Amino acid sequence: MNETISRMMEHRSIRKYSDRPVTRELVEQIVSAGQMASSSSNVQAYSVIAVTDADRRAKLAELCGHQAYVAECPVFLVWCADLSRLKGAAERHVPSQKTYEGTTENFIVATVDAALAAQNAAVAAELLGLGIVYIGGIRNRSEEVAELLGIPHLAYPVFGMCLGYPDQEPGLRPRLPLPAVLHWNGYDATGQDEQVAAYDEVMSKYLRERTGGAKDTAWSELMAEKLAQPARLHMRDFLAKRGFELK
Amino acid sequence: MNETISRMMEHRSIRKYSDRPVTRELVEQIVSAGQMASSSSNVQAYSVIAVTDADRRAKLAELCGHQAYVAECPVFLVWCADLSRLKGAAERHVPSQKTYEGTTENFIVATVDAALAAQNAAVAAELLGLGIVYIGGIRNRSEEVAELLGIPHLAYPVFGMCLGYPDQEPGLRPRLPLPAVLHWNGYDATGQDEQVAAYDEVMSKYLRERTGGAKDTAWSELMAEKLAQPARLHMRDFLAKRGFELK
Repeated sequence: MNETISRMMEHRSIRKYSDRPVTRELVEQIVSAGQMASSSSNVQAYSVIAVTDADRRAKLAELCGHQAYVAECPVFLVWCADLSRLKGAAERHVPSQKTYEGTTENFIVATVDAALAAQNAAVAAELLGLGIVYIGGIRNRSEEVAELLGIPHLAYPVFGMCLGYPDQEPGLRPRLPLPAVLHWNGYDATGQDEQVAAYDEVMSKYLRERTGGAKDTAWSELMAEKLAQPARLHMRDFLAKRGFELK
Repeated sequence: MNETISRMMEHRSIRKYSDRPVTRELVEQIVSAGQMASSSSNVQAYSVIAVTDADRRAKLAELCGHQAYVAECPVFLVWCADLSRLKGAAERHVPSQKTYEGTTENFIVATVDAALAAQNAAVAAELLGLGIVYIGGIRNRSEEVAELLGIPHLAYPVFGMCLGYPDQEPGLRPRLPLPAVLHWNGYDATGQDEQVAAYDEVMSKYLRERTGGAKDTAWSELMAEKLAQPARLHMRDFLAKRGFELK
């Protein structure tokens, strides 16, 4: 089994795919593996839409911020947090009772459920020789994505995922030093500045090598710029309209 | 690699552990595997606290709704969404700029990052022979958990995870029929009532067998009851106080 863990340690996002088709059966196997992830109180509050239709993938590529690989991958998965099944059950079994689908808690439950299933599916896909990349850009124009795919009330697209056989071998992107993310018995920020500084150096080198010297901005600078960016400010209103009022 | 997928398909939550110790090195290996999951724009907006101290685990067991296995497992992981590192980077590099850590978007980014890393770690742990169970109860008394573990502003505990060598062999919990969660090219609720009805039967039988006939409530009834339950209504205010204003 350590061989599999070695494989997991080699994960890199794949954005270029060979012509080898990805069958419906394979997608079913991958999503079935996703289903075996844990789910909060077994609510299974997620759904996934496998987009194989080329026109629809082209449209989604545009909606995701003109990410060509969304159009180029043979299968694009749209992972949704989905409380609509639960709401249906409530309407049937407890029609006169107040329900709490709009709470922040249930939003977390559904979003986490979708993420756990997706990551299990990602691991399975990679073990089967495929490559994946998560697409946060699916939240760029959420309303249009929801309309295009007919996503119901009380569901929202959390992220996309391109699936396909790899036609590239990108280098491994280094992660933060382990002590920056792993704490023992309590959160301990001691040494964090040094850990980030060390990672800044590693990442600058990595970027320099990957871009032929064109880029070498330190990770912490990129993160600072990112936090100063007003990204996807529509999410709050979009979610509220979908029934996720985050109460 | 199909052997590994077969293993993933056999996942079940483990709530009873043998005396076999879980070494620090093993936890480090598991969390390192977690780190290799994808992260939105490489923000790595999560942290994990490994709790090995018995008193602290006992206290956490109480805070999680008196879940004995939190005290009994050798290692309890508390997975946190964590924007504090990013905020630190912004304070250093763009001190005069407005930043957007309080948006719903960044809340999703950090929560999903934590979940992807955790699920990768869960898969790695199981491949190494350990068992895990996710503990949503960590959100029961969030404020006290955050204080006990010294979790900083702009971070929050999303879920816990018990780790240990299994001392039980629970039956496999069936999942929803695949067509209930997997849609092709667009969300299609056709047949959903039948799928849920079929699952209700499967789950009633499963519950009956597991409880020696004591329980057999249909899944959809349990879900209806769950949605009618005012659970963890403090989350919104708790998160706002931590800097996640969900704007």
